[in-house]
Amino acid sequence: MTDPRDGFPQVGNCFNRRCPTRAILSHVTGRWGSLVLAAVREAGVLRFSELRDRIDGISEKMLAQTLRDLERDGLLVRTSRPVVPPYVDYRLSEMGAGIAEHVDGLVRWIELNVRGLVNAQQAHDTGP
Amino acid sequence: MTDPRDGFPQVGNCFNRRCPTRAILSHVTGRWGSLVLAAVREAGVLRFSELRDRIDGISEKMLAQTLRDLERDGLLVRTSRPVVPPYVDYRLSEMGAGIAEHVDGLVRWIELNVRGLVNAQQAHDTGP
Repeated sequence: MTDPRDGFPQVGNCFNRRCPTRAILSHVTGRWGSLVLAAVREAGVLRFSELRDRIDGISEKMLAQTLRDLERDGLLVRTSRPVVPPYVDYRLSEMGAGIAEHVDGLVRWIELNVRGLVNAQQAHDTGP
Repeated sequence: MTDPRDGFPQVGNCFNRRCPTRAILSHVTGRWGSLVLAAVREAGVLRFSELRDRIDGISEKMLAQTLRDLERDGLLVRTSRPVVPPYVDYRLSEMGAGIAEHVDGLVRWIELNVRGLVNAQQAHDTGP
């Protein structure tokens, strides 16, 4: 199903490596994207340094790359504040709020099911 | 909040790098985990070769590693069929069905919003 104006698909297919949805899935779920989206969703607005402190183990380089990708995808809005000293902060766009709801559901599910998951790992490692 | 039996946290925290939820988030969302879970959820049961064909661009090595991680986390059930020639197939466990519902919601959201996402990327790339 393509748009008659430009032949562009109206619904993407993440299973196709040439579909633009594949890269976006990777930004959103990739090593840090899901934690950035969940953190901004919870706080409403966060500065770079607040994100770095909240996401234990992320490097400044990886955080900057993750923020750039999510801003380019239209999911995060970056605002540069002309104060002294200057600083930037990040919030979810309207699209970002839609996707972050799903990401947050996933993160919360894992956190609530941690015991069952760790039990499964231990049973696997000590199993026959 | 910890379990009085062993001091293990009853609810995990993906933002803490030492929490076991962090590695599981990475298996589920990582480069291929979300596509494997979404594919098995849609089909019900899939053989290795069917997964490889369905997930465009995945290597056999990465598929094998992804399946091993998700099986160890208790999310996928691997069944070895004693037929000639022998083969294995994969289905979701009960826990896997719970998490795959969230993963599938995320994948579908991206596929349905592909146009808005690509428009945002283009506006970003040609913007001031």
